[in-house]
Amino acid sequence: MSFDQNAHGVYAIAATPFHSDGRLDLASVDTMTDFYLRCGVSGLTILGIMGEAPKLDPDESMAVVKGVIGRAGAIPVIVGVSAPGFAAMRALARSSMDAGAAGVMIAPPSHLRTDDQIVTYYRQAVEAIGSDVPFVIQDYPLLLSVVMPPKVIRQIIMDHPSCRMLKHEDWPGLEKISALRGFEKDGSMRRTPILCGNGGLFLDFEMDRGADGAMTGYCFPDMLVDVVRLARAGERDKAHDLFDAHLPLVRYEQQQGVGLAVRKYVLMKRGAIASDAQRKPGSALTAQARAEVDYLLQRLARHDPRAAF
Amino acid sequence: MSFDQNAHGVYAIAATPFHSDGRLDLASVDTMTDFYLRCGVSGLTILGIMGEAPKLDPDESMAVVKGVIGRAGAIPVIVGVSAPGFAAMRALARSSMDAGAAGVMIAPPSHLRTDDQIVTYYRQAVEAIGSDVPFVIQDYPLLLSVVMPPKVIRQIIMDHPSCRMLKHEDWPGLEKISALRGFEKDGSMRRTPILCGNGGLFLDFEMDRGADGAMTGYCFPDMLVDVVRLARAGERDKAHDLFDAHLPLVRYEQQQGVGLAVRKYVLMKRGAIASDAQRKPGSALTAQARAEVDYLLQRLARHDPRAAF
Amino acid sequence: MSFDQNAHGVYAIAATPFHSDGRLDLASVDTMTDFYLRCGVSGLTILGIMGEAPKLDPDESMAVVKGVIGRAGAIPVIVGVSAPGFAAMRALARSSMDAGAAGVMIAPPSHLRTDDQIVTYYRQAVEAIGSDVPFVIQDYPLLLSVVMPPKVIRQIIMDHPSCRMLKHEDWPGLEKISALRGFEKDGSMRRTPILCGNGGLFLDFEMDRGADGAMTGYCFPDMLVDVVRLARAGERDKAHDLFDAHLPLVRYEQQQGVGLAVRKYVLMKRGAIASDAQRKPGSALTAQARAEVDYLLQRLARHDPRAAF
Amino acid sequence: MSFDQNAHGVYAIAATPFHSDGRLDLASVDTMTDFYLRCGVSGLTILGIMGEAPKLDPDESMAVVKGVIGRAGAIPVIVGVSAPGFAAMRALARSSMDAGAAGVMIAPPSHLRTDDQIVTYYRQAVEAIGSDVPFVIQDYPLLLSVVMPPKVIRQIIMDHPSCRMLKHEDWPGLEKISALRGFEKDGSMRRTPILCGNGGLFLDFEMDRGADGAMTGYCFPDMLVDVVRLARAGERDKAHDLFDAHLPLVRYEQQQGVGLAVRKYVLMKRGAIASDAQRKPGSALTAQARAEVDYLLQRLARHDPRAAF
Repeated sequence: MSFDQNAHGVYAIAATPFHSDGRLDLASVDTMTDFYLRCGVSGLTILGIMGEAPKLDPDESMAVVKGVIGRAGAIPVIVGVSAPGFAAMRALARSSMDAGAAGVMIAPPSHLRTDDQIVTYYRQAVEAIGSDVPFVIQDYPLLLSVVMPPKVIRQIIMDHPSCRMLKHEDWPGLEKISALRGFEKDGSMRRTPILCGNGGLFLDFEMDRGADGAMTGYCFPDMLVDVVRLARAGERDKAHDLFDAHLPLVRYEQQQGVGLAVRKYVLMKRGAIASDAQRKPGSALTAQARAEVDYLLQRLARHDPRAAF
Repeated sequence: MSFDQNAHGVYAIAATPFHSDGRLDLASVDTMTDFYLRCGVSGLTILGIMGEAPKLDPDESMAVVKGVIGRAGAIPVIVGVSAPGFAAMRALARSSMDAGAAGVMIAPPSHLRTDDQIVTYYRQAVEAIGSDVPFVIQDYPLLLSVVMPPKVIRQIIMDHPSCRMLKHEDWPGLEKISALRGFEKDGSMRRTPILCGNGGLFLDFEMDRGADGAMTGYCFPDMLVDVVRLARAGERDKAHDLFDAHLPLVRYEQQQGVGLAVRKYVLMKRGAIASDAQRKPGSALTAQARAEVDYLLQRLARHDPRAAF
Repeated sequence: MSFDQNAHGVYAIAATPFHSDGRLDLASVDTMTDFYLRCGVSGLTILGIMGEAPKLDPDESMAVVKGVIGRAGAIPVIVGVSAPGFAAMRALARSSMDAGAAGVMIAPPSHLRTDDQIVTYYRQAVEAIGSDVPFVIQDYPLLLSVVMPPKVIRQIIMDHPSCRMLKHEDWPGLEKISALRGFEKDGSMRRTPILCGNGGLFLDFEMDRGADGAMTGYCFPDMLVDVVRLARAGERDKAHDLFDAHLPLVRYEQQQGVGLAVRKYVLMKRGAIASDAQRKPGSALTAQARAEVDYLLQRLARHDPRAAF
Repeated sequence: MSFDQNAHGVYAIAATPFHSDGRLDLASVDTMTDFYLRCGVSGLTILGIMGEAPKLDPDESMAVVKGVIGRAGAIPVIVGVSAPGFAAMRALARSSMDAGAAGVMIAPPSHLRTDDQIVTYYRQAVEAIGSDVPFVIQDYPLLLSVVMPPKVIRQIIMDHPSCRMLKHEDWPGLEKISALRGFEKDGSMRRTPILCGNGGLFLDFEMDRGADGAMTGYCFPDMLVDVVRLARAGERDKAHDLFDAHLPLVRYEQQQGVGLAVRKYVLMKRGAIASDAQRKPGSALTAQARAEVDYLLQRLARHDPRAAF
């Protein structure tokens, strides 16, 4: 389970646990990390842009980094270091690596438009963090409105030996996976692991297209692990069967804003974290939404006993 | 089945059929309309912004309007008239009403930002088309990046007696339905039908929240009709069971760009239209995507015989 | 004064005149065209995206096209044909050419992002309008949020012999002019006229960088004509002197929304059009804004007698 | 010269000086602060979003804060604290106040859309930084794409006694100033100082509309000081005469991206900072752009001896 060109499986995007009064909950950082390990993940990603990382001050960010890495043992930990400026990016990247991170993840800032602007940005980012720091490209047009065509991703990968992975989060994105795998086949791009995001909403077919796994935060990482394992073992129907049973909840959790509340609520029910509180400003589930999630879990439990509470 | 304050059920967003050489296929307009009627829809919506309406010239648009209305019989037909300017909006609205349309649908242009700008826009639009033309508000922030809070929707509805329906397409949007139903309960807004879009991806819970049905183009409108009927009859579990069986395909069809190709491919397989061709510029399914849809249909056919070919 | 690779001078972006009740004012189309000719323009551009073209219905658009062309004599007339779909673009382009237009102008739609998407869009547009129709690229990132790097513009020019001109409206854009002139020098791009927009706000230095003139709608086209003439004659200081005298008004007119009201107000004062009315929805000058424009004109009249009323 | 409801004059947006190797240049922080004081500014604003603040790490940010405050004496210093999250905003706000800042400035994040979202955001921000910290609203739609109608600004001002000033940077924005002054006249809003940004491009008329001064970074703050003084003294023509002489350079400096390079180049020529270097990623003036600025300065020197070098 190493973070290299053979990486595969599931890198869980870890939640950030808070007490109900808004303080960082470091005890839950431990239990949550243990939970992910029990789920069979191959790696962990922390301080992602979709979560609550921007709500942390620098000291808190490092407390989370150290907490997770200290608990995760041999499992590689990736730290999201996207930042408005390179000084902050460099500071977080270097201190994370010093603390034992396996690498960092970098998303392009929203103002980038042209192919050359994107390629240049990653060159500057690598200069900032150092070419010795392994990094993951995060390709997430729906949120960031930066569109990276396959050839731009290829160029970044070929320009930088320290680029070790793609977090694929385009939507629609199946043809992009096929295009990148095609580049590997025709020899124009070196083998690079592709883990998929988007809450797992297309993981079933992403695996069919040649993805190596998932990097996302769905509240049943163990399901993601199973689907990736089944798909890699050629058990296509079984992979889809399990995936389809979870899809109603995957879909419900994928709502922007509300989704994080759903995720934390289920993680709390599963014992991973003590409270589903979000630090302000945060969304909370209404009573009706909570009842809807409970209903989804009940229905899911008929197919997957892990959803029975 | 009238387009008034008691409207409910499914208004199918109709596809625009073309021959493989790009010519408008008016024969398929007939067969497609017949297909929707067989599916049990309560209404039809044509020339929607997500479809291929902008590819039509004005004469072709009117040919589609007249073709569908002439074939639809007593079923109300709504015509999408969103346009960059009010002259074109008015021209299409008046000629559609003259041709027998039940009403028109208007989406806000992407540059609107503030509450007052949105309210003003709808006032100007009503002045342009005439206060005698019934209209539907299309609320679609994901595509249009115009955010309409519940109180803005309420104001438009209360300002204009000719506002007859909301096409609800916010995402996430469940709480918005609850908020609008709350306005009706507290007497601050008159009863207004809410039909939901977003490809049907949340229809199961939208019905639970009090929606009156769906207005979307999913390739199995008959499933939408059944889900709406079951939900309105209080058969919640059965509604979810049927919905969940379709969800993998609903989700696949909901990919922007690719989705329309999927929809037309299945409509062709079901005999609704002669060709799944899109007029240029259009997307086409790759062989692999086509095989994925076939696989989804096979899996669906185990639960719903209408998917067996 | 022909629309070919030696084109230069000023192509005025013509206003669209309305009566105060909103009807199209065709008599003012005549007087306005005469006014532009008296100003010494080398060409006219009509139905531009920043003006009121989207408020016209198709018949009105053609009435403007025919009115201007019929009056303009030997002066080339360019028609803006940017449209949400290619059917409407083709229809307007073909009927404009039939009516005697010299060419058309095409802006990229706002959703384009990558280099390839932009190049592909222009290929499809040329297929739609026909490769026999001369066209102008409109490059206007501030409004359209589509960024076209110099090499993308070069590719469009080299792919399409019918591409005859660039309307340069990037901001900042001086280095882009230098880059494109560099391509011509190194032989990688054929000679292509560059006319500059942005209300003329940088025309002084755009000429210094090698632009061939202006394509914009400033209410003193005769000043633009003089500046272009002086700059081409090597009278740099004189060009800047005249430009600087107008800059306070150029700047005032360049405010989005308000700008068009200023422009029409001055065109009315100069006798070019009968009324400064805008068709709804339009902005109107407040009394204070009107007084500010009058004050600017008074100050300008000290340097340029054409501003004295 | 206090930062209260009678505040007026010019608050210079301070540049961030770097050595040519990218290190922070604290000696130039001193000389630059001295320069601004000599120019007659009434206040200083540091760490603005348009400058190079995001390139600083937290320690460097505080070094700039302390450097400027220590040197500025009795002049109030405002610190820009806009941040992706409230933890970072609070940390910078509190430590800046502890270091002697007079207040902070907060811009709305780009994702805000509705009136209520904007009002809520400022409420949360005030909760985060503390209601004892005076703050400035930064209203900058062109860059941030958040549109704040006058009534939203009024509500923020009336909700929060700690709101002490508006940085007005809307475009077009003259009518907004009139609307806000109207609120003060009709008693619905308490008197609040309005300082204008946008590089000063409309300062002449903004003063005519009732603005209290400027908050911007133009390389001749002494001109801004003079224009504000003349306008407040009722010397309208003189204010416009001086402003117009500078307008060609104001306009040139207002180009996004390039503008900062121009500003630093002139500040260097004027002895305010030792180097015009930008920390990476930064733009640099080409030789031709530098020559253009020199040409503008020469022309300006005919009217304003401060531009003679």
